[in-house]
Amino acid sequence: MKAAIGNLAIIGQGLIGSSITRAVYKQGLTNNITVTDAAAAVRDRVKQLGIGQGKVTETAGEAVTNADLVIACVPVGQLGAVAEAIAPHLKQGAIVSDVGSVKRVTIARMKPLLPANVHLVPAHPLAGTEFSGPDSGTPRLFEGKWCILTPETGCDPAAVETTRHFWESIGSHVEIMSADRHDHVLSLTSHLPHLIAYSIFQTALRYEEKTGAEVIKFSAGGFKDFTRIASSSPAMWRDIFLNNKEPCLEMLEQFMDDIRECAKAIESEDADRLYELFSSSRKTRRRVIEKEHISVLEQKKKKKKKIPPLMRPYASDDL
Amino acid sequence: MKAAIGNLAIIGQGLIGSSITRAVYKQGLTNNITVTDAAAAVRDRVKQLGIGQGKVTETAGEAVTNADLVIACVPVGQLGAVAEAIAPHLKQGAIVSDVGSVKRVTIARMKPLLPANVHLVPAHPLAGTEFSGPDSGTPRLFEGKWCILTPETGCDPAAVETTRHFWESIGSHVEIMSADRHDHVLSLTSHLPHLIAYSIFQTALRYEEKTGAEVIKFSAGGFKDFTRIASSSPAMWRDIFLNNKEPCLEMLEQFMDDIRECAKAIESEDADRLYELFSSSRKTRRRVIEKEHISVLEQKKKKKKKIPPLMRPYASDDL
Repeated sequence: MKAAIGNLAIIGQGLIGSSITRAVYKQGLTNNITVTDAAAAVRDRVKQLGIGQGKVTETAGEAVTNADLVIACVPVGQLGAVAEAIAPHLKQGAIVSDVGSVKRVTIARMKPLLPANVHLVPAHPLAGTEFSGPDSGTPRLFEGKWCILTPETGCDPAAVETTRHFWESIGSHVEIMSADRHDHVLSLTSHLPHLIAYSIFQTALRYEEKTGAEVIKFSAGGFKDFTRIASSSPAMWRDIFLNNKEPCLEMLEQFMDDIRECAKAIESEDADRLYELFSSSRKTRRRVIEKEHISVLEQKKKKKKKIPPLMRPYASDDL
Repeated sequence: MKAAIGNLAIIGQGLIGSSITRAVYKQGLTNNITVTDAAAAVRDRVKQLGIGQGKVTETAGEAVTNADLVIACVPVGQLGAVAEAIAPHLKQGAIVSDVGSVKRVTIARMKPLLPANVHLVPAHPLAGTEFSGPDSGTPRLFEGKWCILTPETGCDPAAVETTRHFWESIGSHVEIMSADRHDHVLSLTSHLPHLIAYSIFQTALRYEEKTGAEVIKFSAGGFKDFTRIASSSPAMWRDIFLNNKEPCLEMLEQFMDDIRECAKAIESEDADRLYELFSSSRKTRRRVIEKEHISVLEQKKKKKKKIPPLMRPYASDDL
C-alpha cells in the first residue's frame, strides 16, 4: 500500500529540516513543498541555496495552509509554540509530525493545542551529524537509518501509513512503537551513554585534582573514543535529560546493577563469570556492527562456547 | 643526554614486538638486534618477512645473551616465565623491559626472578591496533603515542634514560611515573571504559529479555560508537581486571559517585547543575581531542561562561 504524500510543509530548516527538503526533491516525491524557519537569516539562506525552490514562507501558519503532511523540525522546547502557531491554519485531516529526540513530550506539548480533526504522528529519525544549520543538510542523511514513529493508540492507520511511506521514500527503515517504549529505548541507546561519557570526565577531573597528576592526556587506551559523545551540546543534553527524566533514571539504575555485578566478579576474582559477561557483550556487539541483528531471545537458545584458559593468550598487544 | 642503545633483544614478535623491531630498523638505531618468539610459526614468519634480518633465535635465553636492552613483548601472564628463562643468560648491567598493560604485575612477576645486577624498567606503550601477529606490525605504530615507564625508586637513572631514549627514538612521548600511579591512571582511561561498555550491553540484553522488544538495533544514537571497545578480546580484558583489581574497583566507586551526582541533578531537575557538569566535561574533552591538554588545575582558575537559557537553542538536529 503506497499512500500519496500530497502537499508538504517543513517547519524549521536546520540540519534535519533542510535534509528532509533536499531528500524530497531528490526523490521527486512532491512538487508541493513549502518550508519556513523562525529565523529570517535561515529563511534567506534557504532561498539563496534554492532548497525550498522559492516556496519559503515567513510564518509557520502560512506554510501549513494547504499541507497534507506537516513536519516540525524544531527543538523539542519549541514544539508547543509551533503547534499553537499552526493550529488555526491546518487543513482538516492533515498529518502533523516532528523529529524530536524524546517523544512523550511531543504528544504532551502538541496534542492539546492541535484541532481534533488532524492526525499527530510523532517521528524520530536516528540520523544526524555534528553540524547544524541549512548548509549542513544532505539529501542522503536518512538513507539506511532508522526512523521511529510513535502514534498513539487509536491514531488513524492511514495517517501512520502515509508517514511511514514518507520516511521509507527518503531511505529510512521505519519502526513503530509507543512513545513510552521509544523514550525507554533511547534512554538506553543514546541518553545513558551520554550521561556516562559526561560523568567519567568528572571522575577524571576529580582524580586529577586529588592527585595533582594528569590523567586525561593518556586517553589513547579507550577513553578518547569512548567519550567522543561528551563533546555534544551541553544545552541540548540538559534538555533531553529534563524531558526524559524517569526512563533515564530507571535505565541508569539497571545499569548500576549490571556494573555492580561486574565489580562483584572482579572483587571475587570470578574469572569464568567475567569471561562470560564480556563475551556475551562482544557477541551481541558484533551482530550490531555487522548489522546482523538477531533477537536476543533467539540468541539465548544457542550453545555456549568453550572458555579459553586463564592468562593465555593474553594479547597485551591490543592495548 | 643521549644514551647508546647497544645490543637489543625483542622477545615476542606479535603486533607490538614486530612493530618495535621494524621501527628500530627504520630509525637505524642498532644493527645488533636479536628477536625470538615462543611460537615456531611466528619465528618462521618473522624470518620470511625479514623483520629480524636473520637474527631469530629459538629460545629467549639465546636472544638475550649479548643484549644491553631486552624488551619482553609477551602477554602479562607470561612475564614470569620469560624472566625465568632469560635470567641465567643476561649480561651484567643489562636493562630488562616489557610492554604490558598493567605494571605493578610486571614488577611482581619479573623482579624476584631477575639477577640483582640487571635493571628492570617496565614500559607501557599506549599504542595498538585491532590486529595481532607479526604481519600486523608497523614501524610507525609508536609515533606520537605515549609510552609510560614505571621504574621503581632507586632504579639506575642511566638505565631509565636509555629506555626513555629508546622509546623517543621510535617516536613516542615518554612519561615516567610509579607503577601504582600507572595502574590507577589506566584503570580510569582504559579499564573503566571497557568495564562500562561491556556492562551496558548487559543492561540492554536484560531490557530486551524483560520487554521482549529489540533495543540494540537502534544503536545509532550514540550506543554504537560508545560501545566499540566492547568488541575487544574477553580473555584479555578478564585478565586485565584480575591483574588490576584494586585500582579498577576504586575508580569504579568514584565513577558511581559521579554518575549518582548527575542522576541527582536530573531527579531534582537542577538545570544549571546539569549544564555545568556537561559543559565542564565537554571543555575538557575538547582539549584532549585537540591535543591542547592544559592541566585541570590551571583550567579551574578560569572564569565560567554564561549559561544559555533553558530549552533554546535545543538542537534536536544533533541526535
